[in-house]
Amino acid sequence: MSNEIFAQLIEGLGTFAFAISGVRLAASKKYDIFGALIVGFATAVGGGTLRDLLLGAPVFWLVAPRYLILTFVAMLFYIFFRRSVVRWGEAIMLFDTLGLAFFNMTGIKVALGLEASMFAAIIMGTITGTAGGVIRDVLIQEPPLIFQKKEIYAVACLLGGAVYAIGFYAQVNDILLQVVTISVVVAVRILSRMKNLTLPYAG
Amino acid sequence: MSNEIFAQLIEGLGTFAFAISGVRLAASKKYDIFGALIVGFATAVGGGTLRDLLLGAPVFWLVAPRYLILTFVAMLFYIFFRRSVVRWGEAIMLFDTLGLAFFNMTGIKVALGLEASMFAAIIMGTITGTAGGVIRDVLIQEPPLIFQKKEIYAVACLLGGAVYAIGFYAQVNDILLQVVTISVVVAVRILSRMKNLTLPYAG
Amino acid sequence: MSNEIFAQLIEGLGTFAFAISGVRLAASKKYDIFGALIVGFATAVGGGTLRDLLLGAPVFWLVAPRYLILTFVAMLFYIFFRRSVVRWGEAIMLFDTLGLAFFNMTGIKVALGLEASMFAAIIMGTITGTAGGVIRDVLIQEPPLIFQKKEIYAVACLLGGAVYAIGFYAQVNDILLQVVTISVVVAVRILSRMKNLTLPYAG
Repeated sequence: MSNEIFAQLIEGLGTFAFAISGVRLAASKKYDIFGALIVGFATAVGGGTLRDLLLGAPVFWLVAPRYLILTFVAMLFYIFFRRSVVRWGEAIMLFDTLGLAFFNMTGIKVALGLEASMFAAIIMGTITGTAGGVIRDVLIQEPPLIFQKKEIYAVACLLGGAVYAIGFYAQVNDILLQVVTISVVVAVRILSRMKNLTLPYAG
Repeated sequence: MSNEIFAQLIEGLGTFAFAISGVRLAASKKYDIFGALIVGFATAVGGGTLRDLLLGAPVFWLVAPRYLILTFVAMLFYIFFRRSVVRWGEAIMLFDTLGLAFFNMTGIKVALGLEASMFAAIIMGTITGTAGGVIRDVLIQEPPLIFQKKEIYAVACLLGGAVYAIGFYAQVNDILLQVVTISVVVAVRILSRMKNLTLPYAG
Repeated sequence: MSNEIFAQLIEGLGTFAFAISGVRLAASKKYDIFGALIVGFATAVGGGTLRDLLLGAPVFWLVAPRYLILTFVAMLFYIFFRRSVVRWGEAIMLFDTLGLAFFNMTGIKVALGLEASMFAAIIMGTITGTAGGVIRDVLIQEPPLIFQKKEIYAVACLLGGAVYAIGFYAQVNDILLQVVTISVVVAVRILSRMKNLTLPYAG
């Protein structure tokens, strides 16, 4: 399996996991299937969309219908297998973590490809990974999950971004550096979950 | 009356109806007149604004003060005639339906004019017709109406978009096709309302 | 002290005051320090970001890390001195008013610099001054403060914009005109607060 195909597979699984989280929360609010589809789609593509708008780049999903199709499949999957979804909670958490790590990496690369500064690139990585979840929570009228003292999430992206920046200036091989960056995000989130680490309250 | 003037009249009535719905809900939340004006304006132009941002096009209302002026007139109208507004509920519903259908058509045409794919154009039509209402509901802190099992709304736009796409590839005369597309959206919404058709819950 | 340095100082204090208001409200919602940082940042840069997106201009804070750094300092300041923050309420209100007035002026100048119409420039000034607070309130799930019958806020920007427009067409010296515009916004807000002036309800 080539690197390219591997990357697309991870991205697809991440999109699917993000879409499922949107569909699931929309369903819990008694939204109809159209509402669930839109909330799922906004969760899956919202981060990348905000990144593209802020960078002035073409919005990625307008030229690639697969994101909307994947969201539609995620919704059908949720509707038909929702008891299983509850049971498969840990698998979905893993996809979500992979999606977060991959989206973060994509955001950093897209920003650097547009000649943004490393500062902007790290922020764009974190936005790509996390803004979809914030938009989801605004659409279902709940206080955004990632702003609450529940788990380390956005900070995992920022740490991954910091590692990428150090490796970039140390001229580490880029493929290796991407693998390390993705691994850092995954490791930080999984370890913090296992150890119940959270950020302190703001006041 | 020429086609151009007819189109502008419909667009104006749609803008007015969308603005009224924003002003009315803002007033029900005890917002002041400035708040009502902004919520009305966001309802009226929010869908087209999101479309323009996603397509990277100039934002339409910045070069055309008439949208803000129409919103202002809608607010004055609401303040002075609000008892009538309640009585004229069905007339406003009709304007709202015409606005939805016209905005959907405008969104499709704007996207195709910028060489977007037909897939993107259909989505842009639906966004132009419906995103203003979602922004309105976020600003008044209510779960978005169109995500709920109440009536067929966004799906009417998608059906209209599908009809437009079929006619487009079958090389139907464009003026005729636009009239048919607008009629489909209007018919789907009115029929679904008369028959109390709704989408099923997501879960 | 040169004009340039004075302008940057006012902008810095305004950013700081806006960031503090976001951090403070996020803390009151039991958000963690990351959540408070993001809400503070969105409050401080949200208005200018929306302006840049609507105008199709490069987003200002991507090329200037100082806004994020200032927000971070504001958060630390809040965490360590929050009892004082309560006591210094009036000083923060003053910074907030200066920030509002300065952001309004910046928005007008940025829009005119991009050859927007005077109409669009006045709107962009008001958006630059006020949209950050609306985004803050959406993120903490509260009805936006500026839409409520509490104080004259956005209208102060609009009045400042009207004064700027009149002076612009009367060919008043631009530095003088900017000082007058900023003073009008500050004066309208402070006087309306002292006199408890508010806008009427919408219905």
